[in-house]
Amino acid sequence: MPKVDVRERILSENDRIAAENRKLFDDARLLVLNLISSPGSGKTTLLEETLGRLPRQVRTLVIEGDVSTERDLDRVRARGAGGIQINTAGGCHLSAKMVAEALTQLELEDADLLFIENVGNLICPSTYDLGEDAKVVLLATTEGDDKPMKYPAIFHEAALAVINKIDLLPHLQYDVGKVRNEIEVLNSGCEIFELSALRGDGMDAWLAWIDARMAEKRDR
Amino acid sequence: MPKVDVRERILSENDRIAAENRKLFDDARLLVLNLISSPGSGKTTLLEETLGRLPRQVRTLVIEGDVSTERDLDRVRARGAGGIQINTAGGCHLSAKMVAEALTQLELEDADLLFIENVGNLICPSTYDLGEDAKVVLLATTEGDDKPMKYPAIFHEAALAVINKIDLLPHLQYDVGKVRNEIEVLNSGCEIFELSALRGDGMDAWLAWIDARMAEKRDR
Repeated sequence: MPKVDVRERILSENDRIAAENRKLFDDARLLVLNLISSPGSGKTTLLEETLGRLPRQVRTLVIEGDVSTERDLDRVRARGAGGIQINTAGGCHLSAKMVAEALTQLELEDADLLFIENVGNLICPSTYDLGEDAKVVLLATTEGDDKPMKYPAIFHEAALAVINKIDLLPHLQYDVGKVRNEIEVLNSGCEIFELSALRGDGMDAWLAWIDARMAEKRDR
Repeated sequence: MPKVDVRERILSENDRIAAENRKLFDDARLLVLNLISSPGSGKTTLLEETLGRLPRQVRTLVIEGDVSTERDLDRVRARGAGGIQINTAGGCHLSAKMVAEALTQLELEDADLLFIENVGNLICPSTYDLGEDAKVVLLATTEGDDKPMKYPAIFHEAALAVINKIDLLPHLQYDVGKVRNEIEVLNSGCEIFELSALRGDGMDAWLAWIDARMAEKRDR
């Protein structure tokens, strides 16, 4: 772990570049969502199913962050989204600088919506602003119902929490109410959706949330 | 992300302290296992069930690493293990220094086995030696079967990979053979066990592995 002053310098430099990214996004009236979760909570499956259900006229881009491989980008490309992969070469989060470099290869003016799928990690991505409009945190029911209080930072930051894999609830001991309560205690402004990206339950509410956010961004 | 030279200085300082920890462990002939996984893969449940099944004469200690809360320590204490909590206050991994400080509060000479449950994170803990005899990586079947190649560093380091939550396989699309192949490609020396800590399947092989490792350490 770097000494505190090194860490603060890195974060302040990150914030400066994030502000530049945010200006580009705002000028293009592009809604940008930063998806954060543990490995295997279902970020890429949620993206695949979202891309398959968004109205055809919504022009969508994806930035895929991974430690290694281009597997996730291949999956979202198969659903017709334009996008780009950032391989962090072992790095545990995306930074505003990595995103800024990726943006030089994307046509922001031609798009309405940009998903940034962060590296699978519930801790480090929480503190790095990328210039996004909102952080969306995913939790899977299969991870157990004690996670918000154990990993509080991301719940402080997120505008929306998605509880995914609810199709598996009949096979698990998982108290959705407890998870909702913990999130509420950490951040009463955080909206919460329950869904199964794989089976489709709850996708309409998520799509409506995105639609309302895009309208806000367009009309600003 | 710190500049490379800062990161290298931190890692080399970490290695120095890890070597001191290792000497303490070796002098006490104590087997030390560093458990690493994503949040919610089942590290604490595996510990609970292991503590419940180990022969009574095996004297076991636990160091619990968490970003926040003492929930996991409460769970292992309920199974009779002595132990201590390290709260990293947001930090994404345990360091050798954090462990060294915890060790001053434990009676190593009176113990045979020490579990260090790392912070829930599949990336950052991989590169920090704590002085352990072996790193054990857990994967849950519910996280999807594409994880080893996406998070290769920990599989290079681990002596053992545990594929947990096999009780849920009937409800998932998960190719165990694919996961085994990917681990084999990354590290042919890594042993692999499939188990369900919750239901008990496969626990005997895991307990036998621990027993053999303890015997090696005792007789060294």
